[in-house]
Amino acid sequence: MVLQTRRGFLKLGAILGPTFAALQPSVLFGQLQDAARTLGHGVSAYGARSRFETVVRLLRDSRHSEASSSQTPLQDLHGTITPSALHFERHHAGVPNIDPSTHRLLIHGLVERPLEFSLDDLKRLPTVSRIYSLECSGNSRTLWGEAGATTAQSTHGMTSCSEWVGIPLSLLLQEVGVRPEATWLVAEGADASRLNRSLPLTKALDNTLVAFGQNGEALRPAQGYPLRLFVPGWEGNISVKWLRRIELVDQPYMTREETSKYTDLLPDGNARQFTFVMEAKSVITHPSGGQQLSSLGSHQIEGIAWSGRGRVDRVEVSTNGGEDWHRAELQTPILPLAHTRFRFNWTWDGRETVLQSRCIDETGYTQPTRDALIAARGLQSGYHNNAIQSWKVAADGTVENVYV
Amino acid sequence: MVLQTRRGFLKLGAILGPTFAALQPSVLFGQLQDAARTLGHGVSAYGARSRFETVVRLLRDSRHSEASSSQTPLQDLHGTITPSALHFERHHAGVPNIDPSTHRLLIHGLVERPLEFSLDDLKRLPTVSRIYSLECSGNSRTLWGEAGATTAQSTHGMTSCSEWVGIPLSLLLQEVGVRPEATWLVAEGADASRLNRSLPLTKALDNTLVAFGQNGEALRPAQGYPLRLFVPGWEGNISVKWLRRIELVDQPYMTREETSKYTDLLPDGNARQFTFVMEAKSVITHPSGGQQLSSLGSHQIEGIAWSGRGRVDRVEVSTNGGEDWHRAELQTPILPLAHTRFRFNWTWDGRETVLQSRCIDETGYTQPTRDALIAARGLQSGYHNNAIQSWKVAADGTVENVYV
Repeated sequence: MVLQTRRGFLKLGAILGPTFAALQPSVLFGQLQDAARTLGHGVSAYGARSRFETVVRLLRDSRHSEASSSQTPLQDLHGTITPSALHFERHHAGVPNIDPSTHRLLIHGLVERPLEFSLDDLKRLPTVSRIYSLECSGNSRTLWGEAGATTAQSTHGMTSCSEWVGIPLSLLLQEVGVRPEATWLVAEGADASRLNRSLPLTKALDNTLVAFGQNGEALRPAQGYPLRLFVPGWEGNISVKWLRRIELVDQPYMTREETSKYTDLLPDGNARQFTFVMEAKSVITHPSGGQQLSSLGSHQIEGIAWSGRGRVDRVEVSTNGGEDWHRAELQTPILPLAHTRFRFNWTWDGRETVLQSRCIDETGYTQPTRDALIAARGLQSGYHNNAIQSWKVAADGTVENVYV
Repeated sequence: MVLQTRRGFLKLGAILGPTFAALQPSVLFGQLQDAARTLGHGVSAYGARSRFETVVRLLRDSRHSEASSSQTPLQDLHGTITPSALHFERHHAGVPNIDPSTHRLLIHGLVERPLEFSLDDLKRLPTVSRIYSLECSGNSRTLWGEAGATTAQSTHGMTSCSEWVGIPLSLLLQEVGVRPEATWLVAEGADASRLNRSLPLTKALDNTLVAFGQNGEALRPAQGYPLRLFVPGWEGNISVKWLRRIELVDQPYMTREETSKYTDLLPDGNARQFTFVMEAKSVITHPSGGQQLSSLGSHQIEGIAWSGRGRVDRVEVSTNGGEDWHRAELQTPILPLAHTRFRFNWTWDGRETVLQSRCIDETGYTQPTRDALIAARGLQSGYHNNAIQSWKVAADGTVENVYV
């Protein structure tokens, strides 16, 4: 426990500062005894949150809400699971309202036996459940430009983490009998845009799921109800929502979403294509942009880290703009391809400074500085911005997004 | 993978039976091409489930819904996380509507420095997040009597599993300075009944939390918003909701909820008291009471297992009423004091039979048969029924709750 002193005694007074006070217990106990004894409300069929809780997704400014995105309020969440109601969204033609009793998944193309599956069919097969995060490759997109985004939600809110439940795609592919010449597949959604993406067969046979469950219940409509592809560790766009068709093919199909979009333009005019993996990344969610430190003294720095290549090995925190780095405490269990929460206790002396975090994953990859990322990729990449995030703490305790 | 044959090929046809059919792909592909291209709905601030999803908690028949319970629909859920909206409830005076900005936690009694904490105070301290299940000690209560309960929800629905986030109680106790003569504490809720329970100091200093987060967001009101005690592995009632006061004392206080209630009457007229630990238990959720097998052949048996003493070591399944037992597959990671999902592939030959599961935890404890439990405890215990559950599959495929 980072706060423990040699005497095994914790200085909560130092942490909590002037807001924290010892009381005459008899006084408070008297108040407690006088408190209301009104009956509360009864049990209910499907619960709701408190009316005092008003945290919501941030809706991206867009002319068309059907082709827009919404961002998870990372700075207001706890632990690692994202409530399904607050999972980020990115739709290209809105959220279809699909009747699961009529929905089908067709698997065809370079296969021995094309097959069609209903939801009931799929639910009879051996399922797996896994906690995985999902990040849009456009997450932190604004950070290529001016440091205009203000909060962790607006800079990093297109990553979320859920328990996903479904059937290994490998199981379905074994049954249809993949022909030797098949090396890719094309997955297609049932939204009006027929969003489709090419996926290498190797990944399809590895850990890709056809998912119908999220955080215990059915997928939410905004996350693909009743069926989505789930491709762990890879950019969110390829985890095709409202999945209705998988076609086995012998090459990528160069669809709109992997040519005009979701490719990364480099300074030499070439574009990186099929940049599937979401590399290691982290962000401090407290304190973060828009928040204010209310006092000097101890503060808990908290945040989340993840890597599309496996487990987070460690997270390092700097409280002086990258000069010194300290190892943060990681919440266990550390699950592969999932958000990992980190915590670090910091004593603020009241001077302006910059807070940063960097994730090192189990492959040894270290999250880059913004300068290093730009040196490699230029400023036109759009996608895959996993640079170290810098939050400036001003002398008045306000926190804002800066580039250092 | 249990279904894999020597040829490494899966007999999904055998699993899915007559509902499963190979199609002419051109026919279905044609239908797909004709499907509607209507724009769906746009992004939203706080998501909701599909209107086709109607799974709800089962409300216990009670004259007063404020002193009632509701049960989690285990047979309709996936994975291990219970959606907060479907977490079981048990209230004694309804759900209070508490303003978090005015709520306080007082810790007093046999301490050096009585202290009062606001929510903001607590959130500045080092937090932990843990996936833990929570079971009411009255779960499966009806199974002491006639086998009237019909579904997994009505027999076992008072257990749920969430990611809980909070402050270790040990941290707060260190700060108030527990006096040497203190050996217990009394925790009190802010509901109209002032529900209170005595907790041994040893457990308070072990893994007990003062929790404010559940599944990423604030606790739901029905689970104690804005603050609850969370005592992992112990009967749910002691995880006092709407926590407002902790008093350090030198003996248990023999409150109503640990004398008149939540004690287990034995055949000799004595009652077991302070039966805190929820012992190892499991239930098959599919197939389970009220469901119907639609065909012969392969079926996936699924369920959940847990133990208040730590990790599930293994789950064994019997498909012939307890004569033979087979090891089920456990979903990893297997977390201590949390639901663990198990799966077992079974081929039904169409004859009447009885399905059972038993949990063996890491201490070596084995979930008992109903006969063994009754031999030890009689029929008046009320609480702590962790007997092996039996589901009879009739020749017509219907499934019902039986005692064998």
